[in-house]
Amino acid sequence: MNDRDGYDLGPDRLFPGLADPVLSSASLLNEIASRHPHAIPMAAGRPYDDFFDPAELPGLIGDYQRHLSNELGLDRVEVTRRLFQYGRTAGHIGALVARTLAHDHGITADPDAIVVLTGAQEGMFTVARALCASPRDVLLVTSPCYVGMLGAAKLLGIETAAVPERPDGLAAADVAAVAARIRSAGRRPVALYLVPNFSNPSGHTLTLTQRRELLEVAATHRMLLIEDDPYGFLADSSCRVPALKALDRDRRVVHIGTFAKTCFPGARVGYVVADQRVGLPDGGRGLLADQLALIRSMITVNTSAIAQAVIGGMLLRCGGRLSEANQGRVAHYRRNLTMLLHALEREFPPAVREAYGVSWTQPVAGFFVVLRVPFVVDDDTLRLSATRYGVLWMPMSYFYVGGGPRRELRLSCSALDPEQIDEGVRRVAALVRDCAGNEEDNRDDDATVPADAVHRS
Amino acid sequence: MNDRDGYDLGPDRLFPGLADPVLSSASLLNEIASRHPHAIPMAAGRPYDDFFDPAELPGLIGDYQRHLSNELGLDRVEVTRRLFQYGRTAGHIGALVARTLAHDHGITADPDAIVVLTGAQEGMFTVARALCASPRDVLLVTSPCYVGMLGAAKLLGIETAAVPERPDGLAAADVAAVAARIRSAGRRPVALYLVPNFSNPSGHTLTLTQRRELLEVAATHRMLLIEDDPYGFLADSSCRVPALKALDRDRRVVHIGTFAKTCFPGARVGYVVADQRVGLPDGGRGLLADQLALIRSMITVNTSAIAQAVIGGMLLRCGGRLSEANQGRVAHYRRNLTMLLHALEREFPPAVREAYGVSWTQPVAGFFVVLRVPFVVDDDTLRLSATRYGVLWMPMSYFYVGGGPRRELRLSCSALDPEQIDEGVRRVAALVRDCAGNEEDNRDDDATVPADAVHRS
Repeated sequence: MNDRDGYDLGPDRLFPGLADPVLSSASLLNEIASRHPHAIPMAAGRPYDDFFDPAELPGLIGDYQRHLSNELGLDRVEVTRRLFQYGRTAGHIGALVARTLAHDHGITADPDAIVVLTGAQEGMFTVARALCASPRDVLLVTSPCYVGMLGAAKLLGIETAAVPERPDGLAAADVAAVAARIRSAGRRPVALYLVPNFSNPSGHTLTLTQRRELLEVAATHRMLLIEDDPYGFLADSSCRVPALKALDRDRRVVHIGTFAKTCFPGARVGYVVADQRVGLPDGGRGLLADQLALIRSMITVNTSAIAQAVIGGMLLRCGGRLSEANQGRVAHYRRNLTMLLHALEREFPPAVREAYGVSWTQPVAGFFVVLRVPFVVDDDTLRLSATRYGVLWMPMSYFYVGGGPRRELRLSCSALDPEQIDEGVRRVAALVRDCAGNEEDNRDDDATVPADAVHRS
Repeated sequence: MNDRDGYDLGPDRLFPGLADPVLSSASLLNEIASRHPHAIPMAAGRPYDDFFDPAELPGLIGDYQRHLSNELGLDRVEVTRRLFQYGRTAGHIGALVARTLAHDHGITADPDAIVVLTGAQEGMFTVARALCASPRDVLLVTSPCYVGMLGAAKLLGIETAAVPERPDGLAAADVAAVAARIRSAGRRPVALYLVPNFSNPSGHTLTLTQRRELLEVAATHRMLLIEDDPYGFLADSSCRVPALKALDRDRRVVHIGTFAKTCFPGARVGYVVADQRVGLPDGGRGLLADQLALIRSMITVNTSAIAQAVIGGMLLRCGGRLSEANQGRVAHYRRNLTMLLHALEREFPPAVREAYGVSWTQPVAGFFVVLRVPFVVDDDTLRLSATRYGVLWMPMSYFYVGGGPRRELRLSCSALDPEQIDEGVRRVAALVRDCAGNEEDNRDDDATVPADAVHRS
């Protein structure tokens, strides 16, 4: 085969999007993490291990089976089919999801408008595919933005337009400005993707006013809002704001959810509420949800029936009240975030903060804090951090359309023990002091400094 | 919202590929099937229900857990992570898959070259995305072709070129001719997708000679072969031909497999063997498998860990010898196919066959028989068949690039009891006699007859 130089396939034979930092960053991070298994994992946004117990799995599947036979009245053959056969492409547990959405989020959703998908990621991918009808179409995204949405758009060749977040989160006026700019270029803004609660990566939670304004702007510009809400369950009464979908009066919001953080990520079960009425090419009408199901039938066919059974069992056990069932997790994550913020205060006292120009975000809940530092943070900085300082985190450049130099990194506290948080922040502080010192020596280079220069020593 | 006429989103606001028959056919079939739950399901290629037992699930997960702790030496936390956390994007059970490929198919694969995916469907989607680098690139497909590949290409905006199958299957010369035509149009043929064993829908199994010739043509035209093999396990010694991947000496074949038929479809566990060495944009080298894992990280993140655990348990129980473990299934499907062919002989005796111009394929194994009839078979014919005759099947037009009128339908026998096969074919025969009679009355219309004319009565 050997196209050239011992390759089987030269670089021109692979999808060029694979070279985009959004996609390649994931592999880089995995590679660094696997080479440094003992580095403190402040990069990972995964849940804390202690919430999981393999011994519960058989019971959960059993509960779901009993639900199928006792409550839905399925016979033995039908129950077996639900667990083993292909099944309906929109998934089996839409009604259980609808009940949970009603209890936990005040979202009223017809189960027929719910598509169960292979995690929120397949939701983003499927929604983006459905709504971007032509190369004219542009998907608006917050900036910074969750990498999963940027990656999905890249794979589909969908153009994204960044709406920069302000220090207090996304402003409707900025969304309007970007939408107007897109229209004036003869193109169409189709939707805005955002994570309104404890956003990944910025940590912002939008106020009720901000949400209402976004709904208005979306209506004015005939755009949809794609609300991705993996962290909403973390809100207690002190910081709970209604979901965009709960405020939605004219089917302006497509709501993406997941059980990754409330149940477990390995299930790969998420969902989309898509109650929009769509005109079909044949002149008929249907629900957007049905079109999403068609798309997913050509991506994954459906969500693993076994995974749906386990998640179904969990939803049954808590009576569709996941927020209540998750009070222990909420307390854990809140304590971890508080510890992370305290550790940052301790390691960067005001004088140091000011001298170096270090600052960080103050999210009310969530897994993430963004740390602003006085030097460009890139893959080489991460490698250095893993090798010499024994701590992993995410360069914020991964979360921006087009990447580019950024003087920020994201710290996650979700998967860590208290001691790891303290020690992790100590290590990050050592890295920052050393890099900032070097940067000081080379201050003339400033913003245009090549990334590797930061690590000169 | 109401763009117009009470729609929320008009037809111009949805991805236009959704109007393609390849995508919309799945929904039509589901809709018809759900309206006629008692129609005999000769459309479905799903496995037979009796092979599944929910009571086995806990034991299978337990076996997999013991494997992780006893054989792989993972501690309690690591085992829990394997079942509940995100995990490696290439999946956990690559080594178990590699052992099975070696035993059952004589395919030697490095586990690092295996990506575990959400069914074969995500394999097709991911491989198509990776290999089609520019709008110049064209994916060759057999004609007829499995709808899953056509649908994936449609969602990705990838152009496909059909290579018509001959009565004895795919000819390398035809592949060469299509590849040459593509090149002479200034475009690039990147790969040929095919199902070499008991193909869906045509039923063909390629001979050893045909396979060797395809490998040669692929090398000449610098194309890959994408081998999709869901049915290979059905081959007994009388009809076993080595997989293209087993014959592959220069990493010319990307092999897609699935446990849908050998274990169960609801798992949604498939895999791709992609040992090709690829040149990366940064000048480095890697395995195609790693690039597929990057792509899937933005589609599904990974394959459900619970589903992998159940499939892992099944692979452990049979010692990686799925073909042996499936002897009961092989016998069932072979008996069903024989019954289907006998029933066709009985319902269409030679005189009738000749009078009406009816014929059918004679596959040596597999789930499918293609019935050629003297009238155009379309969605209306299927609706009529469901409503008036109580039997479902697949119009063959779904399996051709661009659709178009076809006088063929696909009968499946995999999910049926013997009595259902006999009765189903009786009903199909009644439909054919009635439609052929009407066609006779309208013979002047011939090939250009509008589809609905066939159903005039």
